Formats: sequence, structure tokens, C-alpha cells
Amino acid sequence: MLKVGINAYGTIGKRVADAITKQDDIEVVGVVKAHPNYMSYVASKRFKLFVPNNSALKSFENTGIKIEGTLENLMDDSELIVDSTPEGLGEEYKKIYERRKKKAIFQGGEDHELTNLSFNAYANYKEAWGKDFVRVVSCNTTGLIRTLNPLTEFGNIKVRANLVRRATDPDDYSKGPINSIVPELKIPSHHGPDVASVIKGLDIQTMAVKVPTTLMHLHFVNVTFPSETKVEDIISKWKEYRRIAFVSGKDGVKSTSQLMDIGRESGRERSDLFEIMLWKDSVSVKGKELFYYQAVHQESDVVPENIDAIRSMFQLKDKQDSIDKTDKTLRIGELVYGR
Amino acid sequence: MLKVGINAYGTIGKRVADAITKQDDIEVVGVVKAHPNYMSYVASKRFKLFVPNNSALKSFENTGIKIEGTLENLMDDSELIVDSTPEGLGEEYKKIYERRKKKAIFQGGEDHELTNLSFNAYANYKEAWGKDFVRVVSCNTTGLIRTLNPLTEFGNIKVRANLVRRATDPDDYSKGPINSIVPELKIPSHHGPDVASVIKGLDIQTMAVKVPTTLMHLHFVNVTFPSETKVEDIISKWKEYRRIAFVSGKDGVKSTSQLMDIGRESGRERSDLFEIMLWKDSVSVKGKELFYYQAVHQESDVVPENIDAIRSMFQLKDKQDSIDKTDKTLRIGELVYGR
Repeated sequence: MLKVGINAYGTIGKRVADAITKQDDIEVVGVVKAHPNYMSYVASKRFKLFVPNNSALKSFENTGIKIEGTLENLMDDSELIVDSTPEGLGEEYKKIYERRKKKAIFQGGEDHELTNLSFNAYANYKEAWGKDFVRVVSCNTTGLIRTLNPLTEFGNIKVRANLVRRATDPDDYSKGPINSIVPELKIPSHHGPDVASVIKGLDIQTMAVKVPTTLMHLHFVNVTFPSETKVEDIISKWKEYRRIAFVSGKDGVKSTSQLMDIGRESGRERSDLFEIMLWKDSVSVKGKELFYYQAVHQESDVVPENIDAIRSMFQLKDKQDSIDKTDKTLRIGELVYGR
Repeated sequence: MLKVGINAYGTIGKRVADAITKQDDIEVVGVVKAHPNYMSYVASKRFKLFVPNNSALKSFENTGIKIEGTLENLMDDSELIVDSTPEGLGEEYKKIYERRKKKAIFQGGEDHELTNLSFNAYANYKEAWGKDFVRVVSCNTTGLIRTLNPLTEFGNIKVRANLVRRATDPDDYSKGPINSIVPELKIPSHHGPDVASVIKGLDIQTMAVKVPTTLMHLHFVNVTFPSETKVEDIISKWKEYRRIAFVSGKDGVKSTSQLMDIGRESGRERSDLFEIMLWKDSVSVKGKELFYYQAVHQESDVVPENIDAIRSMFQLKDKQDSIDKTDKTLRIGELVYGR
């Protein structure tokens, strides 16, 4: 059993921790929380709880939360750290992991340059093979790669995608916007270059706005193929990939709210949608161009990618075996919906 | 003075009525309200108030609101009716206007086929010259035409635009979405063909989603030119058109909320933004492609178009004279913002 520490138990970290408990070749040694709060209580009931450093120990005194030690202690027992600390902290933590000779996975909030290896299981599993530091790309970038990577099999494609981003996560009461649309004025947004850091050489431009919702991101995608391509062929190609799930307006699935409801009603923990949800009845072809909508559950789509990245970094399984195992344990491919 | 009746005094109707009072060649004879409510009180203090028909008269009894008569009476004194009735009623009303031999302007909620003449002052003022029935295109279509029509001067362009639509207007407490993104699954959305009904033959595809905000629509626009074009040349071209206003993230204008605040702080009635608001610092060129964001105040951008349509239909003024007069009276071109 490969021993993994989770730093920290936040939106991504807690989900990766749970996903690891479902694997038989990887285990969670412990998780890190920096501050005592309700999630620290929850974490301490499920995993051995650690804090980032000695000064953080003090804040947990008299809370009744049992702390096993610091990140240094967690690293004693860990072969790899899943770093899911807040955006921008990765650089400092990487130095710590390097000093302790621990492998680490970082999340998409960090820059590509932190690891020089941005990861998506479908697109470049083998690139992470045996590597020490890997960055799993962000939720939106993962979403784009999931549906675009299969399309590269049709030849050199050109992608123009516009992202409608959720304002913040459902547990966050403090951020906006609440009645406004906020464009990312820098064009391209970082998502396009980020996709191209995984699908090398892809011609992709992205723009993005933030809107007042907490549930999911939604993408407008426009792909130009070298030659005319049929809707059926595109859908058949996508169907080879379990981490893409199709939904249909015909079944009443007309919004991101209903997508999340599919997660709840399909018995998913936290109603998570690890799959990229793609509206089949939006898939349209005009000449050499393809248009479609997809939605991304920002809290969970990168979770299976983290699991596969671990296996590649420790050469535990080959690409398809790892993906199959991850998908089976997380019940990816079993969502209950319509046609 | 050309005599105009307004049917009905809603979001667009009340604004067109106000805009007409600022003209010296057109006047409002009266306005129609179907139901007694707070807006009927407001309307009755400002204009002669009419109701659609005899049965509606009854609902105004004992309200203290003075009713001058029915739509038939209003038509006695009107040379033209601005029809701003709810979407889909235009067809029935058109028969009434035809029977009374009154010219009429319809709004973008109606189909192009109702009049076979869709109007935008910049793009096809002369087409409405002397015509009996004209349709002013919707707020979003107007927004797209305003910035795209100038770009057609660079040659045959290809347009791919994605619309992020406000859920409903600020006075409407009843509609959603409130925490969801709702894609228009039919691709293209009606906006593309609608733009092409005015800019004939334009290669345009549009997609659209609805999001939880009431203030404005926002557009992602991607234009492909026949050859490489410079940002400065594009902006210079747009600057020839007063109904496009530039804003900049550098001045802190980063959202639709701040755009509406510019309207309020510039002394605009109802904080209306008749102009299409275009983020200058988003305007980007990559090869032959152009990318930009613009925002549309759905309640008011079509108001100046209604005024110009009236002038064209009665051959009161030539295109530029009408636009200049409308803009001067509505203070278009005088918004106070930054660089």
C-alpha cells in the first residue's frame, strides 16, 4: 500500500482523501488542517489529523480535536503528499517536500512552471511516469482537456472556448459577484495556455467570465476540424471515454442545477460529478465546425486525475488499468440519467 | 409634430415614451396599460392613459386612475403605434393597426417575419424609409449589430459570439435562475440569424446561456477578418459610432455592476445605458482574429433605435441627421467615465 499524506483537507483534499480510501493500492496516512473549524472536527473523525507547523499546534489547544503532529511528522510516514493547499502556496511547500525527498502532486491553482509537468490522465498519463512533482490541471482545464483530447484524433483542431465560471464554491458565503457578470479582461484567459501545456501545440483561445452561481462552470466550445466531421462520429469518439457523461435537454436536464441533482439522486457522496457533463443535444456541426456546451463540477472533476497521477508517479499501473480502477472505485460511468 | 401612441407602457414602452418627449418633431399622444398597478399610476401622471379594450376598462374602475379610452381611441389621434406589448402579441395587434391604417413599430420579441423588415439605425436606416411596419431587433441583436456593422467595412467577416444573458429585468422578482447556468441548447441561438436579418449574408453563429443577474447581458465576441487587422484600426473604426461606449478595467470598470453605476452617476434617467459598453482593454487581435467583451443594457439600448425607426418610416430626416438628433436629445456620447 502506497502511503499518501494530504496537505490540506479542503475542497479538493477531502475528496482526494475519500477517493484514496476506496483504492486497494493506496492509503491515506493523514491529513493536514491549518485552523480549527468545523471541517477540522469532521477531518479528525475520519483521518489522522496533522497541522502545518508547530505554531499551528497552539490554535488547536482546548478544541478537543486530536492532533497527531505536524506536516513534518506526516511526511515521516508518507511516500507522497497531495498538496491541495490554497492557490499560490505550492512554491513554498515544494521546498519542504524536496528537502524531505517526498514526491508531491500540486493542483491547478499553481503555475505550470512549478512542476513543468501538467497532468491529465487521458492526455498524458505516461509523462508523469516515475516523476517526483506533478501538477494536476485545474477543474476548467481538466474539463476542456477531457472533451478536446479525443477530438485531436480527427487531426489538427482549432479551439475557441468561452467559460462561464461559478462565482465561488457552495460553502463560501463571503465572495461575489452576487448580481453582476465579471469578465476576465486579459485575453486569452489562462485556461487556453493551460490546456496547451498538456495537449502540446493545440491552437486554443479562451475567454472567461464569472457569474453569480456556486454549482458548476459551463463552457461554450467551438472546434474547427481540418475537414467536415459528423455529429455521430464525434459522439462515438467521446463515448470511448467514461469521464465524459452525456445529458439531454429532452430529459429535462436544462441547467447546472439539474446536473447537480443527478449527482445527488445517483447516490454520489457530496453529489459529486467526477465526469464532464456534456449536453448531447447541443452538439452541432456546421461545415468544419463543431459547437457544444459542457459543464464542470469544479469541486470534484480533478479527483480521479489525482488518483491516476499518484499511480503514474509510482509506476503502479499502466494508463488504462489505472483509469479503469479509479473509475470503478469511484463509480464513474454509473451515473443515472436518461438517453 | 408626428403623433405617436405607445402600446404598452412596459420596460421598453415607458423608455420610448420618455425619449419621444425629448424630441421636437415627434410627440406622445398617449400610452396603453392593460392592468391597474403601480406603473399605471406612474404612467397616468405623465401621459394620457388608455387601455387595450373595453373589457380592460372595468379593471380600472375605483382605482382613481384616469383612463382616456381604449386603444381604438388612442389610434384616432396617432399616426404611428410603438408596439411594446409582451412578446408574441404583435401578430394579433398588427391586424388591428392594419385595419386602422396606422403604421407600427414592433420589438425584437416578435419574429422577423411579422414585418419582414428588421431595423438598426446604423445598419439599415434607409430600408425602413416610408415603410408601414418595422421591427426593431432585440437588445442583444442590437448590441451585436452596433459593434459588428462597423467591422464589415474591413471586408467579409466571420463572427462567433457567445451570449451570457441576464435572468430577467430588475423589477421582476419572480423568475430565475437564481443559482444555476441555463444554456440555450438549440445551436445557433436565435440571435445569430437575427443579426443576419439586418446585416444580410453575415456569417455568424451564436450560443447563449442565462445566468443569475438582472443588470445587463454580456457578450464574448470572436471575429475573423479576411486579413490581419490592427487593434488601433478597429478601435478607430468603432469610435466613428457614438452608440458604442468604451470602458476600461484600468479605471476599475470590471463588471456589469460598475457599468450600471456609470449610468447612475452620469445622471442618466433610470441609469439607462443606451450605448453598447465595450471593454477597450479586452480588445485583442491574434492573426486574423479579433476578440472582445461587450455589455448590453437590455432595458434601454433599443430606445434610440425606436426613435430613428419612426423618423425613417415617416421620412422625417435622413439617417445621420436622425441619429445625431436622437443622440443629442438622449445625451448619447456624454457618458462620464475614464480613458
